[in-house]
Amino acid sequence: MKFVIQRDRLLASIQDVVKAISSRTAIPILTGMKIEAKEDGITLTGSDSDISIESFIPKEEDGIVYVEQIEPGSIVLQAKYFPEIVRKVPMNAVEIESDTQLNVTIRSGSAEFKLNGQDADEYPQLPKLHSEDSFELPADLLKNVIKETVFAVSTQETRPLLTGVNVRVQDDQLHFVATDSHRLASRQIPVSTNEAALGFQNVVIPGKSLTELNKILDENQDPVEIRITNNQILFRTKHLYFLSRLLEGNYPDTSRLIPTESKTSLRIDTKELLRSIDRASLLAKENRNNVVKLITQDSGQLEISSNSPEVGRVVEEVTVQEISGEELRISFSAKYMMDALKVIESEQVKIEFTGAMRPFLIRPTDDEDLMQLITPVRTY
Amino acid sequence: MKFVIQRDRLLASIQDVVKAISSRTAIPILTGMKIEAKEDGITLTGSDSDISIESFIPKEEDGIVYVEQIEPGSIVLQAKYFPEIVRKVPMNAVEIESDTQLNVTIRSGSAEFKLNGQDADEYPQLPKLHSEDSFELPADLLKNVIKETVFAVSTQETRPLLTGVNVRVQDDQLHFVATDSHRLASRQIPVSTNEAALGFQNVVIPGKSLTELNKILDENQDPVEIRITNNQILFRTKHLYFLSRLLEGNYPDTSRLIPTESKTSLRIDTKELLRSIDRASLLAKENRNNVVKLITQDSGQLEISSNSPEVGRVVEEVTVQEISGEELRISFSAKYMMDALKVIESEQVKIEFTGAMRPFLIRPTDDEDLMQLITPVRTY
Repeated sequence: MKFVIQRDRLLASIQDVVKAISSRTAIPILTGMKIEAKEDGITLTGSDSDISIESFIPKEEDGIVYVEQIEPGSIVLQAKYFPEIVRKVPMNAVEIESDTQLNVTIRSGSAEFKLNGQDADEYPQLPKLHSEDSFELPADLLKNVIKETVFAVSTQETRPLLTGVNVRVQDDQLHFVATDSHRLASRQIPVSTNEAALGFQNVVIPGKSLTELNKILDENQDPVEIRITNNQILFRTKHLYFLSRLLEGNYPDTSRLIPTESKTSLRIDTKELLRSIDRASLLAKENRNNVVKLITQDSGQLEISSNSPEVGRVVEEVTVQEISGEELRISFSAKYMMDALKVIESEQVKIEFTGAMRPFLIRPTDDEDLMQLITPVRTY
Repeated sequence: MKFVIQRDRLLASIQDVVKAISSRTAIPILTGMKIEAKEDGITLTGSDSDISIESFIPKEEDGIVYVEQIEPGSIVLQAKYFPEIVRKVPMNAVEIESDTQLNVTIRSGSAEFKLNGQDADEYPQLPKLHSEDSFELPADLLKNVIKETVFAVSTQETRPLLTGVNVRVQDDQLHFVATDSHRLASRQIPVSTNEAALGFQNVVIPGKSLTELNKILDENQDPVEIRITNNQILFRTKHLYFLSRLLEGNYPDTSRLIPTESKTSLRIDTKELLRSIDRASLLAKENRNNVVKLITQDSGQLEISSNSPEVGRVVEEVTVQEISGEELRISFSAKYMMDALKVIESEQVKIEFTGAMRPFLIRPTDDEDLMQLITPVRTY
């Protein structure tokens, strides 16, 4: 195998693929990155068996030559050193060559690296997806949906299904739901594709996979093709192939958690509320739950406060745009509230409470399809 | 005590003072920051008993009012919360008030923090420096001298004196020397002041103190007044008072370590050598010493290489501007070499070797007063 490649293009691909590679893996060869040269370009592959990422660098694209002097072949290189080497080579052209003894030489300018490679035949074959059904979402929409939901997955392995994001098809909508059983994030988006053609009804995607995917996808409207089988999901862009296992089991029905009536309802500036909760949480950080209190005032304002006996107390009045319904005193996790508000880009949010003991809902005022739910903390 | 202060000015002072405060201290009140309000302004103090920093915020300066409504008094506040609170208050004006019960109230906009303070009378008095002798250095020169030497101090407490930078007066020059016994950094600068008036001959300043001082000093030519007694050194700028203890003992005489003859001498581009050593060290990181080899070539170039049996090998030819003397094969720590080259701003360096087993010298070509010495590693 041999080829000469543009450093920056190679580095960009390496940085995508390396996200799937873990130094702790039961299969030693998976600590490496597979490099495969074919006549039409170079493919890099990384995998930790849960996630597999392939990135393709075409020989030429839009009139720009990225790879030259290709002699087909493949090799596996230690992922620990390869990215740093490519980042620091002296010239923009990098030559990579392997011989039959699995010796790899990387040359650039007057620098030459000789590395021990591993046999690419020993690298596991990526599972093939047999599904013919697929649908597409624009990359920026997919990134947004991930951002709006994935933070709410559980980090505890006691209920493994809750570490994933549930994606369900219903009424020509895709429903994304994540919950750690204390809070819930939900986003729905319309799908134009015929429901049957989606090839699935209900899957759970590991939160970690979506987080990594979100880092790799560019913020643009290019289509991401999504293909699902029983235990795998594939996200595919022009040059990227991102494969993740799915979580097995029946995701709990979360719809009954969502209150259908409200007793106190308010509309408030998103950023102002976020900053106020942030301040109130400053002294509460050592509390187990980082709890802040919200009290409706006769003046039509909100009082946000928190109390940490050893340190002190914070109180703040926050102006509400609109408030209606019963008086309310409620306590909740500052972290959950901030997590929920941070992903809402709308200038104002609507919050609907059903008493101090019941979960409450936060929604952007201009978007009914995103919903954040938080279970309060019992303090009164 | 009460005053209203501009947030950004307060925050800047807090960030300086907090560098002296450690959460691990034998004297609990030193985890706090002392705030003292007088008619002319506010003084913040932090200390870990080794380093003490005072920052003064004048009531008014250059026509800008920083502090208003001053009611004199003092209090000690938990340094853990105070900086974050000030950073996140909603308005630029911050009111700080303490009552006789040591309750502190911080108000800004509609936010109000109530904190438990501590009695400022229990805060240790900063030692007074009885020396009348002092000299001045411009801040940017002092920062540069610190940068050029402090990285070479020892991090091991087995020889405590080597954790400091030695400052010695000789022949109208201040000599700064740091060594961990494997490498040495030395800078000398002329002092215009009469030698006797400096009030010291030879002191050792803890490396950590200089590192913190360097972070606090602004990059400008404002004078820093330096005052030394037997066991303390004071650095003073217009509004800052930085006091450090000195290390006690006789710093070793390092002059005999410095070779006076050279057998191989070369002149080379600083950045090019640095980048080449950086590349050669990529594979050597797991070696205990991170060793790279330098070999003079008949072609008049240098070969820089490193070998890490399990990973691979790097070789690179580096162009030399000028070379003279004997052939040379020498091995040394890549980290030491990079540390030394990074602080040299000159475009080219002169390196003088006295054989493969003897320490070698690195100097900027345009500045005889800075010198870096590295002891080689025995590999041949």
